[in-house]
Amino acid sequence: MAQQHLDPTDPTAEVVTGDALGAYLRAQATEFLRALRLHRETGGTTAAGAEESVDWARLLRRSARRISGSLHTFRPLLDADWSEEMRPELAWLSGTLGLEHAYEARLERLLLALHRLSGATALPVQAVTTVAVGAAAPSDSGGPAHPAATQERGNLTVGAAKAGALLERQLTLARTRAHSTALQALGSSRFHAVADKVAVLASEVPLTPTAPTTDLRPLAAAAEERLTDAIAALPLVVAGNPYNAEALVHGLSPDPSPHPQDGPWHQVRLLLRLHRYAQEALHGGNPPADVGLLAAGRALNRHRDASEAAAAAAQAARTPRIAPATAYALGVLHADQRHEVEAARFAFQQAWQKQTVSTP
Amino acid sequence: MAQQHLDPTDPTAEVVTGDALGAYLRAQATEFLRALRLHRETGGTTAAGAEESVDWARLLRRSARRISGSLHTFRPLLDADWSEEMRPELAWLSGTLGLEHAYEARLERLLLALHRLSGATALPVQAVTTVAVGAAAPSDSGGPAHPAATQERGNLTVGAAKAGALLERQLTLARTRAHSTALQALGSSRFHAVADKVAVLASEVPLTPTAPTTDLRPLAAAAEERLTDAIAALPLVVAGNPYNAEALVHGLSPDPSPHPQDGPWHQVRLLLRLHRYAQEALHGGNPPADVGLLAAGRALNRHRDASEAAAAAAQAARTPRIAPATAYALGVLHADQRHEVEAARFAFQQAWQKQTVSTP
Repeated sequence: MAQQHLDPTDPTAEVVTGDALGAYLRAQATEFLRALRLHRETGGTTAAGAEESVDWARLLRRSARRISGSLHTFRPLLDADWSEEMRPELAWLSGTLGLEHAYEARLERLLLALHRLSGATALPVQAVTTVAVGAAAPSDSGGPAHPAATQERGNLTVGAAKAGALLERQLTLARTRAHSTALQALGSSRFHAVADKVAVLASEVPLTPTAPTTDLRPLAAAAEERLTDAIAALPLVVAGNPYNAEALVHGLSPDPSPHPQDGPWHQVRLLLRLHRYAQEALHGGNPPADVGLLAAGRALNRHRDASEAAAAAAQAARTPRIAPATAYALGVLHADQRHEVEAARFAFQQAWQKQTVSTP
Repeated sequence: MAQQHLDPTDPTAEVVTGDALGAYLRAQATEFLRALRLHRETGGTTAAGAEESVDWARLLRRSARRISGSLHTFRPLLDADWSEEMRPELAWLSGTLGLEHAYEARLERLLLALHRLSGATALPVQAVTTVAVGAAAPSDSGGPAHPAATQERGNLTVGAAKAGALLERQLTLARTRAHSTALQALGSSRFHAVADKVAVLASEVPLTPTAPTTDLRPLAAAAEERLTDAIAALPLVVAGNPYNAEALVHGLSPDPSPHPQDGPWHQVRLLLRLHRYAQEALHGGNPPADVGLLAAGRALNRHRDASEAAAAAAQAARTPRIAPATAYALGVLHADQRHEVEAARFAFQQAWQKQTVSTP
């Protein structure tokens, strides 16, 4: 893609063999064990502070994703049975440990958006919840010069505040459940089996007999090709045309899974990650910085977050017996987050265009 | 602005005097009378077809706007008392006759948007109302394979359909009232007094004694300067940055007039129109085509239409005792139209940027 990547067709380039993959996997396994130690030291199985628990969990997921991704990209170089057993376990672990943080980030995103949509000036994130709920006080609606107008103003303010309170209730509950599930997972024999395997991996990578002398680069190039193929299939012309109103097309659709259009973008996000990990394996964990790819990856993260936040707002609107003002606020919020989805696609298109233009 | 405009500082350019203004005003007055005749011939005071009534009303408003605009821009060249009496009467007439069409267009815009947001494929405009209302039938929600999901799907579909039906009821009522008001206005002595004055104008323009030899161009240039000054004061840097999320900032604001940010754009729309009419007066009714200005004007019309449609959706959401699903759909619709407002500002910024770049 960019010139600093190793070119497998360049005969003068240094060959990178399975030995480098072994070193990369050992390093990632060591990181995994370090995160686990951090968790045990900070007492993660008790009700530890959420911040500490997120830190070690993030480190652990980070290395789990890299191990799992490398197993996928460099499959022919690794013991097949071991790989096939390992990958779903790492995916389970990473998914289970990621949920708590995902719900927390989703709530923060939605409350910030509600705050912005209420036309308030910027406030620190910590104050958002308080403000959103506090705005429900009818005394905030001002003097009764125009009773009807004051009533309407009150209703809208209460709508935003009630929507915030509802989302907070629902997503905090989901987060608490995710926290319990994660704690249960960490105490399970399934987890201990994964941890044992990773401990072995830290010293001994099950490479195939020929792997130590096999060139990694064709497999890394194949991962890159899967990425570029998937990107080529995205509707980038539409995405590059600002305000195409495409992301909200199914905003009120009767379809129970209303945003199938997001799928290909989520898929590219995963392929971009696999490509990055493959580059890490080729470059001893430190690939040359690729600003365009980083920007593209950030845009796809934003796309995913906004897509899920929009779905959470739509889901909250289906809560029985909510007030019309609450439902209205959730509708505005849903559409706002779908606009964010569209904006993220535009940002990705711009980053990718620069990326391909700068490629020699 | 663009090179084809007459430059008042260019000594070789031909002087355009008050005589040209007189000819322009006479032509517009004649158009006004022609529209009036059309109205009388098609029996406008009875319940005539809406299409015919809109046609003559549009012609009449078109010339009323041009007469009124010229009275404003070229005020020093016209009898002051006459001008001051004439302008508010033309504004009243133009406003009264424009309302019916405005409500009709607003409803059409909102129903089309609801249709698009429901993820349906494009349908002819005529079918929109039927489809939106028809979708309320619960039999449309498909087989009961997943009762809960089906129920949710049903709710959302019903929400969009109910929102459409509510908007249709409210805006059709407003339109019917506007129609009655327009008919009353056309039968009033106030209207007959305006029509009489326009009939006089068609043969005799009350120019000041010095007007026939006075250069029109400095006054036209002043109108253009008012336009460029107002545009320079717009937040064009923000508007040119796609997905700035600025238009929805007050989407849930407790402010009773939630979109003061639209005001300066509406003002530029009016100044752009005055500038165009001034150019028409200078060029015997046919100024050189200015594609950039036309595109800028279209963007500002779209801005105004979307702004008013968004307000109508928000207003409908304040109807007492509506279902949460209806309110949710109206929230999505409101945000969608505010997004259109933002898109229109972007389109204006793009058109204006081209315009100023192409100016020598």
